[in-house]
Amino acid sequence: MQVEIWTDVNCPFCYLGKKRFTDALEQFDHADQVDVVHRSFELDPTVPAGTSGNVIDHLARKYGRSPEEAEAGERQLGAAANEAGLEYVVTGRDVGNSFDMHRLLHWALELGKQEQLLDALYLANFADATPLFGSTDRLVEVAVGAGFDEAEVREVLDDPIRYAEAVRQDERQAQEFGVNGVPFYVFDRKYAVSGAQPTELFAQVLDKAWGEAQPQPIVVADGEACGPDGCAVPQQ
Amino acid sequence: MQVEIWTDVNCPFCYLGKKRFTDALEQFDHADQVDVVHRSFELDPTVPAGTSGNVIDHLARKYGRSPEEAEAGERQLGAAANEAGLEYVVTGRDVGNSFDMHRLLHWALELGKQEQLLDALYLANFADATPLFGSTDRLVEVAVGAGFDEAEVREVLDDPIRYAEAVRQDERQAQEFGVNGVPFYVFDRKYAVSGAQPTELFAQVLDKAWGEAQPQPIVVADGEACGPDGCAVPQQ
Repeated sequence: MQVEIWTDVNCPFCYLGKKRFTDALEQFDHADQVDVVHRSFELDPTVPAGTSGNVIDHLARKYGRSPEEAEAGERQLGAAANEAGLEYVVTGRDVGNSFDMHRLLHWALELGKQEQLLDALYLANFADATPLFGSTDRLVEVAVGAGFDEAEVREVLDDPIRYAEAVRQDERQAQEFGVNGVPFYVFDRKYAVSGAQPTELFAQVLDKAWGEAQPQPIVVADGEACGPDGCAVPQQ
Repeated sequence: MQVEIWTDVNCPFCYLGKKRFTDALEQFDHADQVDVVHRSFELDPTVPAGTSGNVIDHLARKYGRSPEEAEAGERQLGAAANEAGLEYVVTGRDVGNSFDMHRLLHWALELGKQEQLLDALYLANFADATPLFGSTDRLVEVAVGAGFDEAEVREVLDDPIRYAEAVRQDERQAQEFGVNGVPFYVFDRKYAVSGAQPTELFAQVLDKAWGEAQPQPIVVADGEACGPDGCAVPQQ
């Protein structure tokens, strides 16, 4: 079974939802047969790359709130995160363009190490007051801390074409699914869950999707193929 | 709708099947909504990389046939290919390890240009007597001829880690599906077609899978998410 999760490092509910979903998955009987893929969604693609701003100022300016209102929102998100067992830096975290992080997450997926990188990015953003955005060096530092090779990370980041199309493809798919917020979970392209739902809800949907999963496609026609014993040559 | 096609550049029926499937897809009313992905399958992963051998000798040795028998098989495959409107070099083509080609096909997929590369590789293998296998320079030449950047192609080929995991993942998936020969076509992970079936059969399965396709996953829960208008902060 496949679960695709559209997500953004900038998204507090994605951070929270990952914990709740992971908790559900750890208790799931068939966890070893669930293939989780994190897909790209940019909450704010208009933020220029290479910049970083404090989240409180950013939210206040973007939504026309007072800094106090923006901070109150962050405090509520922080409380929800703490309740799920997660650290949350309420006033210190920053925001910025996440496109390069998404590119790097696609590279990590290819290496079979996407979870490690995403967890490290979430912690760097939400549990560490050191700015994360706008600095390639900081991003490299976080990736290296998660076990990736520094030269390889820099090679991906230095070449803006690498994985850009994979990020865009995820974003197009999200658009086709009508996704307008993240986290967004898709189970075998059949069921979807929007938002950081409770662990119990994720457990229920895992059960439901598993129960209906088709382990093998139905072979409707079989013939002229090549295998380890050669090609079945057509009769003339 | 998604169609995944497990394939190998070494596989005559994959070459033939691609033409027949493409013919069916071109006549299909919803072709623009069909996402085709070519997946990796190595017909003979034990062939050492960096070598190339004539196909007749290889088949005769591998299956204990006389060169005449092996050549007769190739002639039949060639006749079937010609009938589908494809060129086929009966005695001149070579065989070898295709792992690097699969890595390159995954890179091309990421760039949205997988079809172009696969078509060029098939032509280089089946319609051109110049050896294709065992030489990085020849592989680069074919890729450049298909419109890829030489430096980028070399960069991928020179780093054996790049896309290796993606190839292995395709091969694991094929094993899970019980695939023992290629081409193998999977429609929305629901229906499968094994072998280079007639164009009409592909057309029928496209119709069937399309008729049953679920355009959108069903959203079973909606809540705590972040979108372009901010995060819906939980009520305390």
